[in-house]
Amino acid sequence: MATIALRADERIDQLYSKNIQIIQSPTVFSFSLDAVLLGAFATVSRAAKTQIVDLCAGNGAVGLFVSGTTNGHITEVELQPRLADMATRSIQLNDLTDQMTVLNQDLLTVTDQLKKDSIDVVLCNPPYFKDQPESQKNPNPHLAIARHEITADLDHILGATSDLLKMNGKAYFVHRPERLDDLFAAMQQHRLAPKRLRFVHPKADREANMVLIEMIKDGKPNGVRIMPPIVVYAADGTYQEEVRQLLYGK
Amino acid sequence: MATIALRADERIDQLYSKNIQIIQSPTVFSFSLDAVLLGAFATVSRAAKTQIVDLCAGNGAVGLFVSGTTNGHITEVELQPRLADMATRSIQLNDLTDQMTVLNQDLLTVTDQLKKDSIDVVLCNPPYFKDQPESQKNPNPHLAIARHEITADLDHILGATSDLLKMNGKAYFVHRPERLDDLFAAMQQHRLAPKRLRFVHPKADREANMVLIEMIKDGKPNGVRIMPPIVVYAADGTYQEEVRQLLYGK
Repeated sequence: MATIALRADERIDQLYSKNIQIIQSPTVFSFSLDAVLLGAFATVSRAAKTQIVDLCAGNGAVGLFVSGTTNGHITEVELQPRLADMATRSIQLNDLTDQMTVLNQDLLTVTDQLKKDSIDVVLCNPPYFKDQPESQKNPNPHLAIARHEITADLDHILGATSDLLKMNGKAYFVHRPERLDDLFAAMQQHRLAPKRLRFVHPKADREANMVLIEMIKDGKPNGVRIMPPIVVYAADGTYQEEVRQLLYGK
Repeated sequence: MATIALRADERIDQLYSKNIQIIQSPTVFSFSLDAVLLGAFATVSRAAKTQIVDLCAGNGAVGLFVSGTTNGHITEVELQPRLADMATRSIQLNDLTDQMTVLNQDLLTVTDQLKKDSIDVVLCNPPYFKDQPESQKNPNPHLAIARHEITADLDHILGATSDLLKMNGKAYFVHRPERLDDLFAAMQQHRLAPKRLRFVHPKADREANMVLIEMIKDGKPNGVRIMPPIVVYAADGTYQEEVRQLLYGK
């Protein structure tokens, strides 16, 4: 395994189920359960010719999590230089430099670097919250950009997704249920149709706090499927078996 | 209790949890769990001035199920004369002629009979399936109209719903998850915003086969809520407690 320099505020976390190590920093960005669930929800072909793009990649967690399930190439697109650098070093740390590339690039102009209509799978864990004047944002700009739609909103992100995808290409997003109407409206705007949704509930009797969505570009609209819910915690506060396995393996 | 004449193919079914009797006929229409769940999902004010409309009312089941929770007036709107007649007799059977009215009326022209922007709550268990030339329909026209969008599609139904509702009025629909994208698109078209959704899964590990939706007319779009899922059957095939209580009472 390569030796990688860490900055003072950084640590290495491990996703045990995938044997993946990720450079994290509480002061700029840390992956959370959202990224793990998105990585598990995505269906990515094994074929080496598969082209995968992770938009709003942050420290590269989602791309790293799917890397073991495909021989395709994964491009991590991240606007913030500090996060793109963390993603680059995590890729080195996992010996994945042949399979993964980092583009320190604004997604608004991503087709300057990546060919339109050329991508098989887009993955995205976008900023969840609207950039409203009255909304309270983290004073740390790294965290504010990761959480609020400051540099790109849903319309921009789904526009870039649609531009990148081949016909019948798939996109996998994780988002907050409260944005479901915005998501459906923006998908429709950008020739993306919802195929499968999976809601994530903290407990069986609680409202969902995440939604996983599979969409298809220019595909036949033959009906949305609502998969069985993911319930994160059992009544006693321990992880439910499905989630425990995603975090710690079998 | 009034004495009501039944036709040869009719029987009286009881919803035990509500002590409501409903005239059913397998040859024209029978209510099912969908109507029971919709009635339980709807939030209807107790106030006597509340105006409630049940669109695509069929034999009147949904309106009858909510009648005990409000002192408001309930209008059942049903196109098919045979079903409107069944609803009328069920209202008599339950001694609810003061509280409930049946309009044997096409919803496309419902505002000829009911004032625009005057209704507090619209309830609707619409036909679920698109009227496509290739779609297999029941040869019985009563059942075909109840199941397929032959006389009105989602766009017509949500248009009528929006016309009827006051500003901030609420609508409650039950539908199939595979139509979720059509539902969201038609709501947006007709100034209706989704507020709460609840998915119904036959078992915990199965895809949803129903969705309950609360929408608001011209309301502040402050976020969709995904309520805890309803799971109809436990692993052993018996009703889960919540559903059992809705059918049989506590």
